[in-house]
Amino acid sequence: MALDLASLPDVSALTVGILGGTGDQGRGLAYRLALAGQHVLIGSRSADRAAASAAELAELSGGNVSGGDNADVAGRSDVLIVAVPYAGHADTLAGLVDELVGKIVVDCVNPLGFDKQGPYALKVDEGSAAQQAAAILPEARVTAAFHHVSAELLADPAVTRMDLDILVLGDDREAVAVVQALAGRIPGMRGIHAGRLRNAGQVEALTANLIAMNKRYKAHSGIRITDV
Amino acid sequence: MALDLASLPDVSALTVGILGGTGDQGRGLAYRLALAGQHVLIGSRSADRAAASAAELAELSGGNVSGGDNADVAGRSDVLIVAVPYAGHADTLAGLVDELVGKIVVDCVNPLGFDKQGPYALKVDEGSAAQQAAAILPEARVTAAFHHVSAELLADPAVTRMDLDILVLGDDREAVAVVQALAGRIPGMRGIHAGRLRNAGQVEALTANLIAMNKRYKAHSGIRITDV
Repeated sequence: MALDLASLPDVSALTVGILGGTGDQGRGLAYRLALAGQHVLIGSRSADRAAASAAELAELSGGNVSGGDNADVAGRSDVLIVAVPYAGHADTLAGLVDELVGKIVVDCVNPLGFDKQGPYALKVDEGSAAQQAAAILPEARVTAAFHHVSAELLADPAVTRMDLDILVLGDDREAVAVVQALAGRIPGMRGIHAGRLRNAGQVEALTANLIAMNKRYKAHSGIRITDV
Repeated sequence: MALDLASLPDVSALTVGILGGTGDQGRGLAYRLALAGQHVLIGSRSADRAAASAAELAELSGGNVSGGDNADVAGRSDVLIVAVPYAGHADTLAGLVDELVGKIVVDCVNPLGFDKQGPYALKVDEGSAAQQAAAILPEARVTAAFHHVSAELLADPAVTRMDLDILVLGDDREAVAVVQALAGRIPGMRGIHAGRLRNAGQVEALTANLIAMNKRYKAHSGIRITDV
């Protein structure tokens, strides 16, 4: 069947936690989701830093944003977005196995390296950061999404719409639909089920290409899927 | 600088060979390029099969299409599009090393596997089919492009425009610009430089996600890069 955004679940009452919510990507997503009326929790290793960032975002968005340390936020969230640097990805999740049992996890980590020639995809033994998360969190409902959104556009209050698509990967159809609906809360965005978790690696790695295009064309590139 | 399609070279006089021109993807590209006025050569292991396919495409497109065996076509082309099945990719190119010295090669091969769960990306030792081509053809100017175009839409005479982007990968800027211009000959398409050849693997692999979306949403999906 064609993509039917109206058939997606109502996610407006869900609490969305964001690990790495003090980083660029996490902060940008938190801002947009709070602006859309979602209850947002900012997670950080430091509860103080999370609280400061949450207070700032609450004022900026006029929304409901609070903060806590990672375990606290993981435990209180219905959906947990993982936006930590790849270097801390495995360790951070390994400390949250119990808190995330049965929870929807949205991995948006891009394992990338940078050298003089620019960005490139890092090799991940599990195939992707998302599959690494699934291996560490066998009882969580792991999906992957939000890899390609520009942190700069997300954070810019002058940007009122982001006309692009969010590729959502996952094997749990209900969890995927929740994440699609969450993406759809941000004006201009569509969440599209783009395949199983085993096909997340190339979606993560494609961020290297977007960064290369951003540099070459002085852009904040994103993706639209045509004919869907 | 922003993407400036007007600054791309004039490629209208170039002869474009297509290896695997009797397959779905190759045949579709041959049809569109011939329709755009490009001189097209269809290559196949069998010169007879190539000639038959070329005659059919010449009639369908009203364009200039002829055929030959792979070596003949490689030798006579200015730009050679490689659209063979991945299973025959390395062997086919290994037989054309001399013919392709100094030539622009456009690899559009997607190394994919299929099982009960659908499509998935195959591991390629060199990192991608395009990098494999570059390793086999050290004196050719290897680029990668045209991975994501629907063979079905390409071949459908009722489709007059294809509004999507062609991600062009490559380290040789002049060769990349030629391939961008070639993509731009097809109404609706833009050729965008999407990074170095070392970032081709994820572009090839992303075809698995597009196939998954095609199946799920009954679509012929493609990609548009936003803000470029």
